[in-house]
Amino acid sequence: MSTRERILDAAMELFGRQGYKGTSVVQIERAAGLSPGAGGIYHHFRTKEELLAAGIERHLSRLAALRDIRALFTGLGDLRAELTLTARYALAELDREADLLRILASESRTRPDLVESAVRQLVQATYAGFADWLAERAGLSPERAEAVAAVALGALFSTRLLRLLLGADPIGVDDSQFVETWVEMVAALLG
Amino acid sequence: MSTRERILDAAMELFGRQGYKGTSVVQIERAAGLSPGAGGIYHHFRTKEELLAAGIERHLSRLAALRDIRALFTGLGDLRAELTLTARYALAELDREADLLRILASESRTRPDLVESAVRQLVQATYAGFADWLAERAGLSPERAEAVAAVALGALFSTRLLRLLLGADPIGVDDSQFVETWVEMVAALLG
Repeated sequence: MSTRERILDAAMELFGRQGYKGTSVVQIERAAGLSPGAGGIYHHFRTKEELLAAGIERHLSRLAALRDIRALFTGLGDLRAELTLTARYALAELDREADLLRILASESRTRPDLVESAVRQLVQATYAGFADWLAERAGLSPERAEAVAAVALGALFSTRLLRLLLGADPIGVDDSQFVETWVEMVAALLG
Repeated sequence: MSTRERILDAAMELFGRQGYKGTSVVQIERAAGLSPGAGGIYHHFRTKEELLAAGIERHLSRLAALRDIRALFTGLGDLRAELTLTARYALAELDREADLLRILASESRTRPDLVESAVRQLVQATYAGFADWLAERAGLSPERAEAVAAVALGALFSTRLLRLLLGADPIGVDDSQFVETWVEMVAALLG
């Protein structure tokens, strides 16, 4: 892994755990294996904010790559299989974005606007993309597709948001049971 | 309204907006219409923590009262009507608990344990209660009822959690469209 990547990994992990404001450049250098305080980080990033922006950028481009992979499993011809893969993909993605979600949830009044706006765009794009898929795949009207997307994706998001807020799951249902029930529910709506 | 109630209203609103740690007793006195700094608040509460505990207590007892009201609309004989009322009730309840949710989301690392534990119990009780209702009302096995409760209540929770985290709804679906689609989806699972 390049030094740049190591710095980004360390920074996003620390921002998520300690907050953006609560994390110093020296801490990031130490966690990335650079000499703390020697300023080696500045060969790669001019400011802490630039680091955060690059971390978000990396999340977003990873998501774009995954969206291409997702195209592979549409058109299986089997609606339930496609829904199952969508749900597993969404949960795995939420887990991969855990740092971003943690930065967003922590210090809700002082969190960087950069993160709030990046996540908002991401979530909105996900809802719109799923609604488009539903409209095309199951012939729903745009309005109806948006309503189904809101209920269905909301259910998936809630599994990770509740864990983030409560520090625990409210009920002992594992991901595979959850996904199975979710698929059945969404498929029932699509007829 | 009694002085005690006024103090509680002011405190919970300020805790939600500024954080528990970020709110001083003097600010609460001022917002409640007491002489700031004169210590009038101490006739009612010994510490800021006691105030928070009383605020949570009041939320929980209000919820208990509402649970009695909820009993009124079970047994309508019409599953969709019962689900519709359940969904509207849950959303209205989440709105009434907005202060608690805001205190929970803000400063996720420094939030009072008292709030985290109260909300966790509340959410767990809600999931368990809805699963019981599903098992009884629609004859689901306990395991199946838990899975349906996790997906269905998760969808309802997500509407308010996403708004809290993102400062905006991810898609333009209003509550009445959402509830209608949600009822259809849950009813489809119950057969």
